[in-house]
Amino acid sequence: MAIVTLLTDSGESDHYVAAIKARIISINPGIRIEDISHKIKPNDIAHAAFVLRSVFRDFPKGTVHIVGVDSVGSRNDMPIAVQLEDHFFVGSDNGLIGLISDKTHQNLIVLNSINSIQTTFPERDIFAPVAVKIASGVSLSDLGKPMPSFKKMIDRQVKATKKQITGCVIRVDSFGNLITNIPKDAFEILNQGRVFTIQFGGEKFRRIQTQYNQAEEGECFIVFNSLNVLEIGIYKGNASELLGLSYDSVVNVTFEE
Amino acid sequence: MAIVTLLTDSGESDHYVAAIKARIISINPGIRIEDISHKIKPNDIAHAAFVLRSVFRDFPKGTVHIVGVDSVGSRNDMPIAVQLEDHFFVGSDNGLIGLISDKTHQNLIVLNSINSIQTTFPERDIFAPVAVKIASGVSLSDLGKPMPSFKKMIDRQVKATKKQITGCVIRVDSFGNLITNIPKDAFEILNQGRVFTIQFGGEKFRRIQTQYNQAEEGECFIVFNSLNVLEIGIYKGNASELLGLSYDSVVNVTFEE
Amino acid sequence: MAIVTLLTDSGESDHYVAAIKARIISINPGIRIEDISHKIKPNDIAHAAFVLRSVFRDFPKGTVHIVGVDSVGSRNDMPIAVQLEDHFFVGSDNGLIGLISDKTHQNLIVLNSINSIQTTFPERDIFAPVAVKIASGVSLSDLGKPMPSFKKMIDRQVKATKKQITGCVIRVDSFGNLITNIPKDAFEILNQGRVFTIQFGGEKFRRIQTQYNQAEEGECFIVFNSLNVLEIGIYKGNASELLGLSYDSVVNVTFEE
Repeated sequence: MAIVTLLTDSGESDHYVAAIKARIISINPGIRIEDISHKIKPNDIAHAAFVLRSVFRDFPKGTVHIVGVDSVGSRNDMPIAVQLEDHFFVGSDNGLIGLISDKTHQNLIVLNSINSIQTTFPERDIFAPVAVKIASGVSLSDLGKPMPSFKKMIDRQVKATKKQITGCVIRVDSFGNLITNIPKDAFEILNQGRVFTIQFGGEKFRRIQTQYNQAEEGECFIVFNSLNVLEIGIYKGNASELLGLSYDSVVNVTFEE
Repeated sequence: MAIVTLLTDSGESDHYVAAIKARIISINPGIRIEDISHKIKPNDIAHAAFVLRSVFRDFPKGTVHIVGVDSVGSRNDMPIAVQLEDHFFVGSDNGLIGLISDKTHQNLIVLNSINSIQTTFPERDIFAPVAVKIASGVSLSDLGKPMPSFKKMIDRQVKATKKQITGCVIRVDSFGNLITNIPKDAFEILNQGRVFTIQFGGEKFRRIQTQYNQAEEGECFIVFNSLNVLEIGIYKGNASELLGLSYDSVVNVTFEE
Repeated sequence: MAIVTLLTDSGESDHYVAAIKARIISINPGIRIEDISHKIKPNDIAHAAFVLRSVFRDFPKGTVHIVGVDSVGSRNDMPIAVQLEDHFFVGSDNGLIGLISDKTHQNLIVLNSINSIQTTFPERDIFAPVAVKIASGVSLSDLGKPMPSFKKMIDRQVKATKKQITGCVIRVDSFGNLITNIPKDAFEILNQGRVFTIQFGGEKFRRIQTQYNQAEEGECFIVFNSLNVLEIGIYKGNASELLGLSYDSVVNVTFEE
């Protein structure tokens, strides 16, 4: 039986997370439930999309991900289920799911009225029961009506020319490390052995390390991380605080001829 | 076998939660353990009771809930096990369990000396072993001596007349939403199609929405939530911060003739 | 099959913890995973060692503990697996594991190149796969090369003479309780029925309680806690805040003739 994961902005000081789990257990106690995070900043779709995008493929194919951020959505947002890269996602059509993959979806339905009831707690009352059904083998076509597409929002784009890559910080993690949207392969294609300068805040660097500990304590490291994007930090320190950089801070890589 | 849930104010930066789980696993690895929350504000019985009251019925009947808030209790508080609404609760007789239900308990014992040892860590050394026994089918009568009643504290009461319901905020959740103790059915009985005014802080409203997104961004919504009580929030905002309201803030509903 | 526990400083707002679990599940979904904590202060080896030392023996023998704090370590720190007190630990040889026990290790290997790949995310890419192997019964000798010893750091030592025990606060928990390194048995050996004075901050006390609630609300309690060390707190209050004491604050026990 498939795993059901949970991603919410509920926090852990209330009953919301336990209520979602209790609902799943009550319907089918054989379902394995795994938390991705419940500490997404309230309503922060960019934060949620970053976390989900970074980890969903690590779970086995067929995993069902409950996406409980901005679950009520705007007035026209419907509750949907999407099959994408061999994973399933159940949530509101609020644009979040559109940010986690560039691939074409394999299947997409809007939940029918049997599965989509009036509630201020859709994660527990709509998404959890549907997730259990999908995890138990029920076909999407039995849960709702096909929809041609779901809401896509325009994510921050990396801009690249022969001379420069311009990206930005898309996530500041709990260590204060600055994770950018500059992909390793874009860098390598353009690098071609040329001298490069990486620029952010008032800082300039001409080296990329392969490991956090190649910088001295208190000094900057720049690596391509496990997500294969450029990451900036301070070894044994908090780069966001020390450099005064945050979400959306610009990062440039300039190549010299 | 029954599920054992955990509710504590231990936080998650120490070894306390893992120690409770390790004790359960060591006695019976077949027991399923589910966290309700470990982020209850230290010793905050009102917070703990709100969370437990809001979710315990979502778990299957027979679930055993370890109630680890103010677990040592005052000098005369005994460790007890209670059967209530077909659920079991193991904790200190400090008044918490008395706040989670108005129903008469089905069974109540004070734990005997075999089950109640001298310890500064009762959640691990007393409640967890007893919870495992109950979850494994041991009868309460084998675990201690019957007690006629357990400590009940007087919870904040909603006051209702034909003209007005006076309640208050009993929980501010992580979104800053203000959850009151004004029940939907009390409102509906008194409403009778009359014009009403809802008043809190300096604000007055004459409408109740059915969904969070029926308010504009930055504006107040008022709904009867999934707990069937009045909840006030700001759509995509933090009502507690923006309105300056918190636990115990008064909320009035006045009906006009 | 053995349990695998997780101890990290990753926090829970990112994808790191879920990525480690997803890796374990993908290799062997039959492994039981239990969190110890993910709220260790970033890179704080003392905090991590305190929590791990305080709880690992509560898990069954054979449990495999992934130690994911300062996982990349310094430039010469190798990824190791240690068998110690019948438990297994997988982490970086950064000194943390050396702080959790005074016993001689039973087995120690540095992971070989099959098991130790180049990565900025060793918890997921190195420690998790090795932990699964050990939990599944693979012998340490098949995972790497024997090493004679691992890094030991000098922990804060209690000093004891016939007249005085000098220790310090080694952990401030989420309640603000001050946990010291003064062991109960050292106290009892030296006490010998003599009058004693316990001194910390500007405070002096001549009594030790056996339970938190033997102090009045707002007043200090001093107990030997469930770890059998001296613990100072304020009943229903936060001792660290109220007394202005913290990690490393000195605590003296003086005996009179």
